[in-house]
Amino acid sequence: MNNQQLFENIRKKGSFLCVGLDTDIKKIPQFLLDTTDPMFAFNKEIIDATAKYTIAYKPNLAFYESEGLEGWRSLEKTVHYLRENYPDIFLIADAKRGDIGNTSSMYARAFFEKLKFDAITVAPYMGEDSVKPFLAYEGKRVVLLALTSNKGAFDFQFIADNSGEKLFEKVIRTSLNWGNEENMMYVVGATKAEELADIRKIIPNHFLLVPGVGAQGGSLQEVAKYGLNKQCGLLVNSSRAIIYASNGPDFAQKAAESAKETRDEMIELLRNNSHTTSFF
Amino acid sequence: MNNQQLFENIRKKGSFLCVGLDTDIKKIPQFLLDTTDPMFAFNKEIIDATAKYTIAYKPNLAFYESEGLEGWRSLEKTVHYLRENYPDIFLIADAKRGDIGNTSSMYARAFFEKLKFDAITVAPYMGEDSVKPFLAYEGKRVVLLALTSNKGAFDFQFIADNSGEKLFEKVIRTSLNWGNEENMMYVVGATKAEELADIRKIIPNHFLLVPGVGAQGGSLQEVAKYGLNKQCGLLVNSSRAIIYASNGPDFAQKAAESAKETRDEMIELLRNNSHTTSFF
Repeated sequence: MNNQQLFENIRKKGSFLCVGLDTDIKKIPQFLLDTTDPMFAFNKEIIDATAKYTIAYKPNLAFYESEGLEGWRSLEKTVHYLRENYPDIFLIADAKRGDIGNTSSMYARAFFEKLKFDAITVAPYMGEDSVKPFLAYEGKRVVLLALTSNKGAFDFQFIADNSGEKLFEKVIRTSLNWGNEENMMYVVGATKAEELADIRKIIPNHFLLVPGVGAQGGSLQEVAKYGLNKQCGLLVNSSRAIIYASNGPDFAQKAAESAKETRDEMIELLRNNSHTTSFF
Repeated sequence: MNNQQLFENIRKKGSFLCVGLDTDIKKIPQFLLDTTDPMFAFNKEIIDATAKYTIAYKPNLAFYESEGLEGWRSLEKTVHYLRENYPDIFLIADAKRGDIGNTSSMYARAFFEKLKFDAITVAPYMGEDSVKPFLAYEGKRVVLLALTSNKGAFDFQFIADNSGEKLFEKVIRTSLNWGNEENMMYVVGATKAEELADIRKIIPNHFLLVPGVGAQGGSLQEVAKYGLNKQCGLLVNSSRAIIYASNGPDFAQKAAESAKETRDEMIELLRNNSHTTSFF
């Protein structure tokens, strides 16, 4: 899915929401544990309830791997279900992989061939050859960690070199030589909305994946203010605030309501932003 | 397994070899493809042939994930087989994970509870809260990426701040506040042997996991020269040079010969090093 198609979907739905499928077997409604595949059963209900408000889904690999073989099976079924029933959905593997070249190639095979994801989050620490193998796949994308939403982001990502360039800026600038606006995206945490303005100076046109709205405390309005560009350019992720909106039999309905609420907020932001107002 | 036990095993075997189980379905002997679980069949033969020369095994997760559900099953069987038959082996998940706290907790559950690994490799980019959840497990370890063996290591790991401290040094120094000599190890590539001397000044006593000997071109002698300490303090990994020593019916025997050769070199290095000579 290229940027233009992504943007068309955003226009159609009036939403730039990505729903994070952080499906924790210990947090899903307990009555689902009687089904043969509780994680998949949960995901299917959540997806069916929220898809019309959502541009992208982002299963978080850790949650599936924590259940071993069964978790991996739930993940495969979830990806297959999305591909079959919602072909317009952009599908991100939140895996934060990255290793020497020949190993990254194997991760690329895992997420782009074996599982039909559109994109995968990748950690930049190991540099170019840890990222390039993912970019070898036509039509697929790397979502590179730049500035993350967590407290630990301050440990290393803000380290500045002699010229004053911070590590997250260096990561973005350097990686511009590896890919392009179509096959690279960046993770920029909603909790660091003010840095978004600086980041937009380096990469005005790239799509950004923005986690940290909701449970982590980031503000959607701030993110829109500093991050929107003429193709929207944002996918804002929300996980817990949507998928765990209720723990009862109405969990899917409540998730839909929460997703709709976010979509309603997003369409307003798109209508009132100078970059995107003419399209909404 | 604590440092003392690790050291006892190193003394007993005269080896500080870690064998990397980078088991690629496309590279293993083709006759194994007729078995019900070729990746496990391969690993089992390799393990049985090399265990007496080996202190640790390090399955590389990418290779298993690239085969989806079946790959994950092969991994589980491999870990189980090692735990059942070789209780003295130190078992490292080469996974290079790292995410916000609640996600890292799920990865910790995946690799320390669901799979009984002793240690996991973790990427430092996201800082303290991405590492800490792994350290909450008594008796388990984080192997933090510091200075990796690949070309891309030069992209970011050598960036120096105003004080001249390089990113990999900053990562090591900062992480000393998160854990201790028993629950933290560091990845330091064999291809960067000279930096080992500087790293030993910061962490004289920690165990280091050293990849990059063999196919990647690092020198075992250089690594020993700069890296050995009074408890050995090194686990040197070799993957391809051992497990793919032959592609024929003699693959296990050739792997054993290659592992033995490395062990023989290691015992000489231990005997001739001022730190360890009295023990060998």
